[in-house]
Amino acid sequence: MPLLHPDRLFPADPDTRTIARRLYKEIKDAPIVSPHGHTDPSWFADNAAFPNPSALLIQPDHYVFRMLFSQGVKLEDLGIPTHHGSAVETDPRRIWRLVAKHWPLFRGTPSAMWLDHVFQEVFGLEEGLSVANADSLYDHIDACLQRPEFRPRALFERFNIEVIATTESPLDPLAHHGKLKNDPWQTAKGRPRVVTAYRPDPVIDPDFEGFAANVARFGELTGENTRTWEGYLNAHRNRRAFFKEHGATSTDHGHPSARTADLPLAECKVLFDKALSGKISRDEAELFRAQMLTEMAAMSIDDGLVMQIHPGSWRSHSPTMLARFGRDKGFDIPMQTEYVGALKPLLDRFGLDPRLSIILFTLDETSYSRELAPLAGVYPALKLGPAWWFFDAPEGMRRFRELTTETAGFANTVGFNDDTRAFLSIPARHDVSRRIDCGYLARLVAEHRLKEDEALELAHDLTYRLAKQAYRL
Amino acid sequence: MPLLHPDRLFPADPDTRTIARRLYKEIKDAPIVSPHGHTDPSWFADNAAFPNPSALLIQPDHYVFRMLFSQGVKLEDLGIPTHHGSAVETDPRRIWRLVAKHWPLFRGTPSAMWLDHVFQEVFGLEEGLSVANADSLYDHIDACLQRPEFRPRALFERFNIEVIATTESPLDPLAHHGKLKNDPWQTAKGRPRVVTAYRPDPVIDPDFEGFAANVARFGELTGENTRTWEGYLNAHRNRRAFFKEHGATSTDHGHPSARTADLPLAECKVLFDKALSGKISRDEAELFRAQMLTEMAAMSIDDGLVMQIHPGSWRSHSPTMLARFGRDKGFDIPMQTEYVGALKPLLDRFGLDPRLSIILFTLDETSYSRELAPLAGVYPALKLGPAWWFFDAPEGMRRFRELTTETAGFANTVGFNDDTRAFLSIPARHDVSRRIDCGYLARLVAEHRLKEDEALELAHDLTYRLAKQAYRL
Amino acid sequence: MPLLHPDRLFPADPDTRTIARRLYKEIKDAPIVSPHGHTDPSWFADNAAFPNPSALLIQPDHYVFRMLFSQGVKLEDLGIPTHHGSAVETDPRRIWRLVAKHWPLFRGTPSAMWLDHVFQEVFGLEEGLSVANADSLYDHIDACLQRPEFRPRALFERFNIEVIATTESPLDPLAHHGKLKNDPWQTAKGRPRVVTAYRPDPVIDPDFEGFAANVARFGELTGENTRTWEGYLNAHRNRRAFFKEHGATSTDHGHPSARTADLPLAECKVLFDKALSGKISRDEAELFRAQMLTEMAAMSIDDGLVMQIHPGSWRSHSPTMLARFGRDKGFDIPMQTEYVGALKPLLDRFGLDPRLSIILFTLDETSYSRELAPLAGVYPALKLGPAWWFFDAPEGMRRFRELTTETAGFANTVGFNDDTRAFLSIPARHDVSRRIDCGYLARLVAEHRLKEDEALELAHDLTYRLAKQAYRL
Repeated sequence: MPLLHPDRLFPADPDTRTIARRLYKEIKDAPIVSPHGHTDPSWFADNAAFPNPSALLIQPDHYVFRMLFSQGVKLEDLGIPTHHGSAVETDPRRIWRLVAKHWPLFRGTPSAMWLDHVFQEVFGLEEGLSVANADSLYDHIDACLQRPEFRPRALFERFNIEVIATTESPLDPLAHHGKLKNDPWQTAKGRPRVVTAYRPDPVIDPDFEGFAANVARFGELTGENTRTWEGYLNAHRNRRAFFKEHGATSTDHGHPSARTADLPLAECKVLFDKALSGKISRDEAELFRAQMLTEMAAMSIDDGLVMQIHPGSWRSHSPTMLARFGRDKGFDIPMQTEYVGALKPLLDRFGLDPRLSIILFTLDETSYSRELAPLAGVYPALKLGPAWWFFDAPEGMRRFRELTTETAGFANTVGFNDDTRAFLSIPARHDVSRRIDCGYLARLVAEHRLKEDEALELAHDLTYRLAKQAYRL
Repeated sequence: MPLLHPDRLFPADPDTRTIARRLYKEIKDAPIVSPHGHTDPSWFADNAAFPNPSALLIQPDHYVFRMLFSQGVKLEDLGIPTHHGSAVETDPRRIWRLVAKHWPLFRGTPSAMWLDHVFQEVFGLEEGLSVANADSLYDHIDACLQRPEFRPRALFERFNIEVIATTESPLDPLAHHGKLKNDPWQTAKGRPRVVTAYRPDPVIDPDFEGFAANVARFGELTGENTRTWEGYLNAHRNRRAFFKEHGATSTDHGHPSARTADLPLAECKVLFDKALSGKISRDEAELFRAQMLTEMAAMSIDDGLVMQIHPGSWRSHSPTMLARFGRDKGFDIPMQTEYVGALKPLLDRFGLDPRLSIILFTLDETSYSRELAPLAGVYPALKLGPAWWFFDAPEGMRRFRELTTETAGFANTVGFNDDTRAFLSIPARHDVSRRIDCGYLARLVAEHRLKEDEALELAHDLTYRLAKQAYRL
Repeated sequence: MPLLHPDRLFPADPDTRTIARRLYKEIKDAPIVSPHGHTDPSWFADNAAFPNPSALLIQPDHYVFRMLFSQGVKLEDLGIPTHHGSAVETDPRRIWRLVAKHWPLFRGTPSAMWLDHVFQEVFGLEEGLSVANADSLYDHIDACLQRPEFRPRALFERFNIEVIATTESPLDPLAHHGKLKNDPWQTAKGRPRVVTAYRPDPVIDPDFEGFAANVARFGELTGENTRTWEGYLNAHRNRRAFFKEHGATSTDHGHPSARTADLPLAECKVLFDKALSGKISRDEAELFRAQMLTEMAAMSIDDGLVMQIHPGSWRSHSPTMLARFGRDKGFDIPMQTEYVGALKPLLDRFGLDPRLSIILFTLDETSYSRELAPLAGVYPALKLGPAWWFFDAPEGMRRFRELTTETAGFANTVGFNDDTRAFLSIPARHDVSRRIDCGYLARLVAEHRLKEDEALELAHDLTYRLAKQAYRL
């Protein structure tokens, strides 16, 4: 029995499954367009070998260690570095064994599916992780990683990735992207393969660590006087242009809420001064972020960068864990998120402008049918991003389609993006999405709500066309 | 291949589908009871020919033009009149072609299904709209519309409509309904075929355009002094009686929220004076509407009109579009809606009274299982309206049943209503509802949660009996 | 045709159903672990015959009489005692007939399924309740109840209950549990069969009827000075120890919200004094309850009692019904419930402590995927309780698994609990849960998302192991 069944994730009903298989067969080999993610550009710029199985597959994956932590495994024992210098496991094999011991916890989760996919499709393995085979799997993968065909660029090509976007802070010098610009590999297929995206939270969010220092550095990098509101906005324009030169076609905004504002100039200046001085209240910081979304929209109309809004995560919910291990350790928790009132100031100003394209994401599934589909189904400037983060999983993806299609159709959605730093899981994630979408379309065909030729066109759209078009790639 | 498959919308599983077919066969030809909608009473009073395919099928349908607008089609090019006199397309054939060009946008949406149903069942067509056949379809439909059997009354009878309710403002003279009263067609089957419903928002909502003038006119129409609270309430009593004489069995209330209030008389008077003067705050306007729901409930206990509460839409979300095109142009967006606290003042006073019947609707599906089913499952005065507006679609209807039945059963729901101004789509909409309900019942039978004879009785209830009973028709 | 079909509640798809059958066969006879419920301990202590069919099956079941009431049946006619001495039906046979007359209202609800299960499995009946057979069913059941094999202990053993928890107030003398301690039946299988749980709402909630008197009585029972904050906390410690001696392994907290607090000592004292004096605002009462959850967590770390938090019910929504009939009459209505911010003070202090175990329940299904699964999927102190109350039903249980598994897995859930005072329905409720879980697992197997051997282990976990482990039984 292979690790992956060829019919996995298709609906069980035989007729529906047969249709899903037919649709999937036509699109399964389409190139991967990965317009939003968090891979490390140095991998592609330097093309060095990945260090070891644990560093590659376990340690960058907060889905994995949050589950282990919930069941009593210490992050130190997974080799996650601490800020307090407590002893941390350094032997990748011991980390691997610890994960193997707890692997049954992942039954029914996407993590298990993704890792099985990596095992079989990338490393040619035929069984899933267990205590019994942990060492032999480790050895096999470790040996593979030494070989040239497992270097980042070789995998990139093997995965049939057409283009991948990474995400960088405005303060990032984009050194790796710069190196890639001068590397023939980057444009061997005509267009850039690895592009950046503009993620300005560190210089937009007054609550970000070191905000004032970040803004000062932002001024140095751009040659603008970022102590003034005008200079600060110019620094954004300048840096967005720099990012565009490094392939960026989008910006990305991870605010706590979707709130936007459209304030008079004088108020903007006052808020900005307060933000820089650090003497800004919680509400004012929220208002500043809100105003900045509208400023970013204005700039997008000028420079054509697509906006992505990813709201609704309570970042680093546990202060103890933040102090001990830093950000992005699995303690980001979704919150209720309101869009209809929150986006209104921005939409009142720019929502009807066809030059603007905003892709909305959510961690609050209740907003799909109630707010997001109705908004995206009428405002030309709005599109819906795919099921995100915790919902980038079979049931989450199904709910996304079932809750949005009847109101927003397919054309107001943007295909799939993987949003991951786990490079090897990218084909797995796109494959899950393709299978779930084909299964959903197959159900519509089986229920005679769609003709099969229409479904096939839609399968192509959802797999490839919509992402390229929405992200202007 | 016919445009409509006879098994459409039934579950794909063969056994379940077979049961669904059996149930559907028994109820598919039941008369249509349409207790809530927005058709134009002049159609039935005057029985004139419909003007052309676009005016009949496209221009009254905000589901259609909101989707087109979201993808860059201008409303002017669809012939939607503007308030600013910008040039508007006047050739219905060009409008029709424009819709045909973008028709693939509607894949997977109820609009596509409804139009296909109209094409096949009303006009005898065998293919769906496309660029290739747009002209020939237009010509065929246009020719049909000239013929007597496509006049409103002929279609009314062909659709097997037993009764249909329209919705009118208290300021409406009900001229068409008055004309119908004296027309033998109206009562040819014994009971009135076309009835009105009392929709008092223009004289209840202080935020409604021209509220004070409306209330003054309300006084003139009723002969009451609507500058006083007592006179204003009397005007409602008077006008409700007038509507009852024109067949009304229900009132309809489209407030932003479900809030109700039960204030002392003195406060009511103060609020009313403020509302009339226009010097009313946002919160006070909300409170006035809240009080008026309770006043309407009191009058319903006296005169027996069923109350419908349709809250939770942010009307005309885009001020630019409101200014340019007016209300009801697809920019009404659902909001989070709370019921448990909101309805309490009204329920504390009247919720246990079996003479009162309130039908609750929602655009916030999260309230189905959390609030509405538990409330309707215990308060004698409450019933649940069907999946509404954006949710009047296959998945929306399925979720409605799955989320309400276990707590509220079927008897606390009221069957289907179409809520449409698109007259020709009425049989399509009722057919979708009948198929989805039969599919849901069939699943319960297939999972041995219901006997098939019980399911059959329920199918009749959901199709016909509950609507007649709940709306006292 | 038997009343219960052997395949009931399994998915209709034949392959999936076959897998579900195989899984169910292996776990259907596992012992019942009932770690949270509201049966009367006197039943097991005294082992007296149950009085009559209506007193046993109808009158304790608010699911039944809320539905009947919603459709116009008076609670007096069901023999529910009033506080105002109005005439109440006293003939159990007439009550039974009244229920039979309205029994079709329950189609599609869990109540119908549970009663059918009791009829067939407990009383050997072969048909469901109807007007025609109401008397003969009544007579049959009534005759059974006179027989020794229908006494509480005999049923307990026949139901294969391993352990059952009841729920008591700290003011309860635990007389029945005390009697059981000295009864060899209680420990005939080695471990206690009937245990209590500590439900301190009457002495924690300032809004509870008679709060100050309750706290005074609490002092008398424990010998602590409960007029001081320290003495009050000591009284809890003392009483928790007393409950532990009577088998308790858990506490249970039914607050309106999930709010917690971690206030300075001085503020705690002030709040407590206000609560005792009755001069406490609504917000302060909420804050006091919030603080008490954190105090209870601190005590749980010391004494090992598992905490259950059951928030989100608006208790006794109708003041008229509360005044007339008292609490727990079907008028408790779910509300929107927020967890991420609400639990933070408690989690900041204790959330990473593996000695603490908190089981979270919800009546707001939107929190499953948005808040609860992400929280329980990372905090070691948190687990998810099963679908609760209105959601303890097939569709509710399915949604629970579909909405939580991908983020929290199975190990962060705690199996099933019945939460009922309807003793005879306990096997029915556990059977529904087992069937739905097997059907869900079977779907994962049929979609090749899980191997069947993994599903079988999980079926055991969900049926038996997780409940024993989570509740430390």
